[in-house]
Amino acid sequence: MKLSTVASGSRDGRLVVVSRDHARAALADGIAATLQEALECWTDVEGALRDLATEVDAGTAPGLAPQSAWQFLAPLPRAWQWLDGSAFESHGALMAKVFKMDPAPRDRPLMYQGMSDRFYAATEKVPFVTEADGIDFEGEFGVIVDEVPLGCGPHEAAAHIRLVVQINDWSLRNLAPIEMRTGFGWVQAKPACSMAPVAVTPDELGAAWRDGRVDLPLEVYWNGALFGRANGHAMSFSFPELVAHAARTRSLCAGTIIGSGTVSNPNYRDVGSSCIAERRGIEILDEGKAWTAFMSFGDRVRMEARSDSGQPLFGAIDQQVVRART
Amino acid sequence: MKLSTVASGSRDGRLVVVSRDHARAALADGIAATLQEALECWTDVEGALRDLATEVDAGTAPGLAPQSAWQFLAPLPRAWQWLDGSAFESHGALMAKVFKMDPAPRDRPLMYQGMSDRFYAATEKVPFVTEADGIDFEGEFGVIVDEVPLGCGPHEAAAHIRLVVQINDWSLRNLAPIEMRTGFGWVQAKPACSMAPVAVTPDELGAAWRDGRVDLPLEVYWNGALFGRANGHAMSFSFPELVAHAARTRSLCAGTIIGSGTVSNPNYRDVGSSCIAERRGIEILDEGKAWTAFMSFGDRVRMEARSDSGQPLFGAIDQQVVRART
Repeated sequence: MKLSTVASGSRDGRLVVVSRDHARAALADGIAATLQEALECWTDVEGALRDLATEVDAGTAPGLAPQSAWQFLAPLPRAWQWLDGSAFESHGALMAKVFKMDPAPRDRPLMYQGMSDRFYAATEKVPFVTEADGIDFEGEFGVIVDEVPLGCGPHEAAAHIRLVVQINDWSLRNLAPIEMRTGFGWVQAKPACSMAPVAVTPDELGAAWRDGRVDLPLEVYWNGALFGRANGHAMSFSFPELVAHAARTRSLCAGTIIGSGTVSNPNYRDVGSSCIAERRGIEILDEGKAWTAFMSFGDRVRMEARSDSGQPLFGAIDQQVVRART
Repeated sequence: MKLSTVASGSRDGRLVVVSRDHARAALADGIAATLQEALECWTDVEGALRDLATEVDAGTAPGLAPQSAWQFLAPLPRAWQWLDGSAFESHGALMAKVFKMDPAPRDRPLMYQGMSDRFYAATEKVPFVTEADGIDFEGEFGVIVDEVPLGCGPHEAAAHIRLVVQINDWSLRNLAPIEMRTGFGWVQAKPACSMAPVAVTPDELGAAWRDGRVDLPLEVYWNGALFGRANGHAMSFSFPELVAHAARTRSLCAGTIIGSGTVSNPNYRDVGSSCIAERRGIEILDEGKAWTAFMSFGDRVRMEARSDSGQPLFGAIDQQVVRART
């Protein structure tokens, strides 16, 4: 099943069910007004949503309209909680080496609490104050859970993963090390993220939902040129393990989004990277100096993961960086 | 003006206006259903809320009922954003010395993004998984803003501070250093906070709202014994400066809560502390060893700041720590 959110004049938009080929969508009228509402009573509404999805794919759903009739927002235009992991060891190890930091602990995932009151739509222009902050993208996968009880283990956590999403975790690299050194984590270095338009249930991924991970390449294009196509399976900790880590001392509210961290593979020299910082890190290791600059105003980034047969899954993030008006 | 939120069966409760002496309250019916709603259109509703406050104090407001008739929640039972500073230098310097960390930068405040999907009511029991995590309180002041534009400076930020609140930032001290070392900040070490029942407009503090700070002692009692009465004025950065720091790379949504960090004074040996970690730090410096243990299940903590004339301001946080059922 594929769900999305369309503009409605309210901050949370309205929930739609999207056809498998993304050609059409219908409002989930009478089932749940918003995705947040659906997640708060998931087991009550999932059946009705799946029935509607069948009708959407058959072309018989009431109010069915072509994709072009809707203005898609992020599946959750705002969320009560966003916790982002950093589960790809090849990325973490490279960054630690370049920045001469202690290697990350291996017995627990890395995770930070990020701003959640806004997620940009996939094609929205993204404003930044200054290029001097080091504007970078981070291509990620993520999951959305319904309510997860305190102390939930990974096995039980897996059952609370209701949706899989694709995220661009915007990062300001010249602010990040200043904030990391304090131990307090990032505030200024991590403004709002963007989300691809379609959230899918794990079963929609078929065999590509493997070991609690997304076994698909995430294709990242910067200004039209392929920048990376790392596979999402290489996580050291699975999504259920990330969810359980987060739930160790708190229950997770329905609609909590948990991210994988920037997708990275050990053979990054072959498959490329999902963020500029990683490419710069490779350059520093190989050539003693980073020569790839961060993003400029006007630059575009496109991120998409398709199924093995080339079918769309989450839709594409395709956006432009612009100068903020302050 | 004093605002609070009462239980209504919904997650956000309902907005009430509270009398200056806390004896009575009335629903803000027809003005705003919830505090979040009021904050989203503050300049439109502030006049009507202040008119109602006058009627509440005069005893003429419709639906006025005694304090005992209401079940008070946190003013914001959940918020879209919670950013906590650490603005008391005496606390930060002590902690850095004890834990042999680099001293904090002086040119920018420390701040972390905390979980915001739940704030405990002031008298709610607070569940934790295990005493072995090192359960600690942190008495703080905080402010709630309406929408703050990206790049907003401290002067402009001051005008967006609509309410002042009193917070207990629950902390798990044995998890904190593990998470700090990663540079990613706290997730497991910072579960949900608690909030005193009454949020006040800055003018309600009179002369005690001074230099964008709360110039009042925060009295902290642990199991009935006075533990600290440090004054809130000793912040190295004012609340407007904390708000501006947060808004450097993001606009702040209405209802964002910004905390001071644990209240601390340079003469902590005389006035005591607002968290156990600070007292343990003093013991380590003075005696080479911390002999004060963290909290046990069944322990209580009470925190209250009163006006110079002894009038209630935010009401008290008075809660018990209990073992979570997992």
